[in-house]
Order: sequence, then C-alpha cells, then structure tokens
Amino acid sequence: MKKLNIGLVGFGTVGQGIYKVIGKAKNAHARIARICVAHPEKKRPDDVASAMPLITGNYDELLADPEINLIVEVIDNPDDSYEIVTKALKKGIPVVSGNKIMIARNLPELIDLQREKGVPFLYDASSCGSIPVIRNLEEYYDNDLLLEVKGILNGSSNYILSRVFDHGDKYEDALKMAQELGFAESDPTFDIEGFDALFKLIIITVHALGVYVSPDDVFIYGISKISDFDIRWAREKRAKIKLVAQVVKISEERFTMFVMPEFVEKHKYIYSVDDEYNGVVIRGECYDRQFMFGKGAGSLPTASSILSDVMAIRRDYRYEYKKMSYLDKAEYTTDVMLKVYVRYRQTDIPALLPFSKISEKYTSEQDNYVVGEINLADLIAKRDLLNAEDVFIINIPRFFIDRD
Amino acid sequence: MKKLNIGLVGFGTVGQGIYKVIGKAKNAHARIARICVAHPEKKRPDDVASAMPLITGNYDELLADPEINLIVEVIDNPDDSYEIVTKALKKGIPVVSGNKIMIARNLPELIDLQREKGVPFLYDASSCGSIPVIRNLEEYYDNDLLLEVKGILNGSSNYILSRVFDHGDKYEDALKMAQELGFAESDPTFDIEGFDALFKLIIITVHALGVYVSPDDVFIYGISKISDFDIRWAREKRAKIKLVAQVVKISEERFTMFVMPEFVEKHKYIYSVDDEYNGVVIRGECYDRQFMFGKGAGSLPTASSILSDVMAIRRDYRYEYKKMSYLDKAEYTTDVMLKVYVRYRQTDIPALLPFSKISEKYTSEQDNYVVGEINLADLIAKRDLLNAEDVFIINIPRFFIDRD
Repeated sequence: MKKLNIGLVGFGTVGQGIYKVIGKAKNAHARIARICVAHPEKKRPDDVASAMPLITGNYDELLADPEINLIVEVIDNPDDSYEIVTKALKKGIPVVSGNKIMIARNLPELIDLQREKGVPFLYDASSCGSIPVIRNLEEYYDNDLLLEVKGILNGSSNYILSRVFDHGDKYEDALKMAQELGFAESDPTFDIEGFDALFKLIIITVHALGVYVSPDDVFIYGISKISDFDIRWAREKRAKIKLVAQVVKISEERFTMFVMPEFVEKHKYIYSVDDEYNGVVIRGECYDRQFMFGKGAGSLPTASSILSDVMAIRRDYRYEYKKMSYLDKAEYTTDVMLKVYVRYRQTDIPALLPFSKISEKYTSEQDNYVVGEINLADLIAKRDLLNAEDVFIINIPRFFIDRD
Repeated sequence: MKKLNIGLVGFGTVGQGIYKVIGKAKNAHARIARICVAHPEKKRPDDVASAMPLITGNYDELLADPEINLIVEVIDNPDDSYEIVTKALKKGIPVVSGNKIMIARNLPELIDLQREKGVPFLYDASSCGSIPVIRNLEEYYDNDLLLEVKGILNGSSNYILSRVFDHGDKYEDALKMAQELGFAESDPTFDIEGFDALFKLIIITVHALGVYVSPDDVFIYGISKISDFDIRWAREKRAKIKLVAQVVKISEERFTMFVMPEFVEKHKYIYSVDDEYNGVVIRGECYDRQFMFGKGAGSLPTASSILSDVMAIRRDYRYEYKKMSYLDKAEYTTDVMLKVYVRYRQTDIPALLPFSKISEKYTSEQDNYVVGEINLADLIAKRDLLNAEDVFIINIPRFFIDRD
C-alpha cells in the first residue's frame, strides 16, 4: 500500500490533534507533509513545535505539491472549506474532511464530484467525532432493514443539560461552565439551537436512507429557552430532557426527521449519555436496537476518527452511497403526528397551535402547558409562535401516526 | 454488482432467520438458491415452508452447483463446519460463517487459505451477533491506537446473572429460566463456563491486535459456582458480577487476555448491559472508550449480521488482517498481576494460592474469602485448586501491573 503524504489544512485544536495522532500511529505509513493555516505567523503550543517548518499560509501550495496525495481539511469556515475541498477533488486528490456544515450543505454536489473524478472523499469525523456512525451506516447497515437513527449528536448542549439534570445547576451557570471548559463556543447558538446536530443528521440520513434533505427543510428547536418549570416537569416524571436528533421511517414509503428537545425516560439508551458524550441508537428490522457511545468531539477523539479515514484512504476505500440508488427509497415527509409538551406564559398556545388532540392542560398564575398531538408540518408553519420568548416545546416520543 | 446465489448450510434457528432476512432485504440482490441440512425429511415451521423445495441433505450438491457463488454456513458442529468451509474456500467459493468454535480453533489456517485462494471469508456474526465488532476492529480501529477490547460476549450467562442481580432470582432458577427461554442450551456448559466468550475473544484479538492465541492458552473461569455469599458480597458494594472477556495491552510490547467473572461497579459501561444483551468497550489512545451495545444472539439479530457480511461479499470486501503484519505487534503474556476475590470453604486458599499480597481476609464458620494480588500465570498453574467445588474467583478490575 502507498505511503500517504498529507497536506493538512487547519491547525487549530483538531489539526494539532491530527498532527499528534499521526505521530503515534507508527503503522499508518502516513506523515503530515505540509500544513496550511490562516495565520502562519501565529505562535503554536510547544508540543507541536516540530510542525512549524511545515506551515504555509497558502493552500494552493499544498494542492500544487506533487508529493501530497491526501488533503485533510479541518478548518471552521464552511466557505473556505468548500473551496479547498472541491479544488482538491477536481485535481484528483483524495480528501478527508470534518466540516459538517460544508458537507451537509453541499453533499449532492460533492457526491457528483467524487463520482466524476473517481476520487474518495471521507468525512466520518464530521458526525459524532470518534463514534464510527457514517462508516457503519454505509458498510454494515447497508441494507433495507434500517428503520431509525436517533441520538445525542451534540456534546455541548448535552453537557449543559447534564449539568442541569444530574447536578442541579441553573441553565445559565451550566452554559457558562461549558464555555469555560471549551465545550461550547463564545457564541453557543450553533450548538444549543440544534444546528450542529442538524448538520450531522443531514449527513447521517444520506448514509442511513440514501436521501439528501436540505438543512432548510428540517425542523430544529434548541434548548436555550428551557426553564426551571420544564426541568421540574420532567424531573417529576423521573425523566431527563435531552436534545435529540432523529431520522425515522414511519412507513415503507416515508420517513421524517427533526432535532428537538425530547422527554427521555430512564429505560432509554440515550438516558445515560451524559456530559459531553454522544450516543446513537440504530434501529432496524431483525437486529432491533444497536447503541454506539463515545466522545463526540474534542481534539484527540476527532483526530482519531480522522486517522480512521486516513487509513481507509490508504486502501482506496470510498463511500459508495449504495442506498441512493435503491429503487424504493422512502421519501422525506413532515406530514407526521407528534406528541408534544408546549409550555407558555402569555402566548395563547392552545388557541394558536392546531393540536389535533389535547390530552393534558395545565394553567397557573405564571406557567402553563399543554400536552397534545400535532402535525410536524404545523409546527414548522407556526415556527414564529414557537420562537416566542415564553414558549418551549419538548417532544414526547411515543409513536408516529402516519397520515396515509 | 453481481447477484448472489447463496448455498445455505444449516437451517436451524439462525438458518431460518437468514432465509427470512434475505427475503426482506429487497435491495440485497441475493437469494437462497439451495439449503443443505442434516435431516432433509424433518418438518420445518410454516413461515419457512417456501424453502422446502430448496433443501438437500448433501452439501457437495451446493459446492458443485455452478450457480452458487456464496456459501453461508450456520451449523453447530465445528468439525462439519470446518470441512464444508475449507472445501468451499479451496474451490474458490466465498464463505460467510457464524461458527465461532471452528473459526477460533482454525483461524491461522483459514487466513492462509483465504490468501492462497484469494477468496473472501467473513464471520462478523460469530462474535456478538448483531454488534459489528469484527468489522469495526478490522476497518475503523485499524491502527496502533487500540489498547483494550472488553465486554460481555455471552448472552446466556449474562441473562442468568441479570436475573440474579436485578430480579433477586436464585442462580439455579435463573439458569432454568434461561433454558426455558432458549437462551441457554440443555447442556449450558459452553455458555456459563466461558467457552463461548473465549472463542469470540480469540477471534476479536486477531482483529484487535493482529495476534492469534490458541484457545487452550487462555484462562477462562465460568459462573456456575457462584454462591449467595458471592452475590451478597458484590451487592453490599453496590456492584454486579458479570462474566467479562477482555484483551488488554499492558505495555507497548505485551498484552494479556482472559474470561472471568468480574466485579462491575455502577459507573462502568458494561454495568448496564443486562439480560441477553452483549456490550463491548473498545478503548484506545486518543479516542478513549467506545461502547457498542446490542443483541448478541438470536435468530434474526444473528441473521441480520450475516446479511451485512453477505452484502459485503457482494462488493468483494475481505478482511485484510493488516495488524498481523505490523512490525511491532504486542506479544501475548500471562505474566501479569491481577487483583482477585477468592471465596472458599474447606480448600485452604490463602495457603495454597501464591498471592503476592493479601489486602483483605474474611473467615467465618462457613464462607471465607481473600482479596489479593496474584499472577495470572499462577492462576493457570493452580487451575485444579480453583476448580474445587467450594471455590469461586472474581476479578476486581483495578490496574495491570506489568512485571517488566
């Protein structure tokens, strides 16, 4: 097998992790040949000082280097990522990337490009860090049996909710702690409003069911407006609230997907996914539920996932996207009934949300809530209502009622 | 990709499951072409009645059929399995097998045969049923970072211990219930004495560390002699006793492996692996711990794992056993210190077992125990002593002391 000379793009936390991990993996027959960064003059930590002579500020130097036979791209900016990744693929250079935003937004085009150029593009690190979700969906669950992929895909929001539910912290304190520990960014919107989980879910769905759904077409709802009242309500029922992403076949012909806070009871696998961990449940006919659990983010866990992709490139592995060519693929729908809890203060939720059935109603001088059945499409249509400051919604998993 | 015409050998629980699963997997482009069984005249359940015209009593018919391009072998008898599998591979026919005993005993020869004939032989179903352990060790954790694979690999013994610890059943009642439910055979020795877990561990070790260790060279200890005293001792410490198989790198150069009852505390991932489930923890540098959980046995879960291998054969996937050619593979050793609990009545354990250190000692009119450190090689040497009716040993995981 060939020796890999890697052009590494990005040398932040993950990039430095990759530099260290590749150094440890003696049998990988891979080395970092060049590193491209936005600010070549910036001081780097001592433990990666040996990388300094490899650094350049111009990624075209990496693409032009005839020795470099793999680009590993781990920068934050999705636009730059898109430019570098597509340029490399067009030049016939294999790429490993961890940029979930860029991938989720451009996957159809990237798939076409891979096929046209016959060059591999791997990105297992983009979804759930060190948990091999993409690879297993692509290779092991590559058949018609798969019914559902559901899990905790964002470590930052899960850390915050764990602090709230397991340690009794206030949401604001937990968020601050997550930021101090580096689990959440200074602008935590991306994590806590569900975007990070959404982008991962988009990628997962391509490999789970062979269907690409645009991120714009999927309902997401974050955790930032969770209140003590909601927390108490869940606790009284001995449950936790977690931010859950899911894609579910509701019939032979149709599937749905969304990211929402969910009422999680103790007997569920994801109940015990705490702190910054990720956990994914893969459900199928015949094998029932498989649960995978591990570190979803962080420098070295993400880097170890990148290493797995690098090793796969060495043996010319590529995703085949076989499910995309299935004849009887399920179609994406938002026309599906959910059971939800909606808490509100002044917004008149029972009057304004078109519940098909309300099974519980609670009013008080301050907080009120209803539990009822509602169509996901109606939740999407009433997005503004749900965005009101006094409103919070939680999915109560029970069953999906397919309207057909 | 080619269409697969499968010659199925064995039509018991798993074989019938495969027949059903292949029927469900419309996009598999695979069909069962012939079925070989020991007793062709035997009546089969109604839901597989359509298979009856495919049945023969002579497996040579399958091997001679030019249409058949894959043998799926799921019979119990390891000698017959060996004969059929090697004959098929020698004829250049790919094979998928679930026979852990046969594979664990003959893996070096089977690897040579695959290489010589250039024909794939897959067996993910042989270890942990529907959990993709082998495939992930082979493909995703195919690098130097792996440190440990540890888990509950036998569903029957775990079911029994779950009944005892979670439901307060007596061991004998739990064993009987497991037999009635079909989790344990009428001769349960294979499961409860650790042989089943051992054979799986042998296979896992080849794919985890690239080293084949003969089953005869590995210490195993079953759960059949567990007593109320042992159960109470663990319960008082809020722990469970589980039958755990593990292979662990204790240094860069050496690894050890064994199957033993283990003291499992609540914070461990495998603590919550209950009933007939399997759970595997994969630990490595950088990614820390990955946990995989699912159904380890049963007709349809095993069949779904076989389906994954069948689909992999369709795209000419084969195990490459890359780690076997690593230059600096770790070597197997039993020269490693363990911390153990040994309960006894008349056998004078403190005098007869060469503990290097005893940290606890309890004597009473009936049951006595010591907790101490002892070399694994000494446990193997004193096997007869540990086999005495009044003795039971439990591993207390703590750390490994490498003697070097």
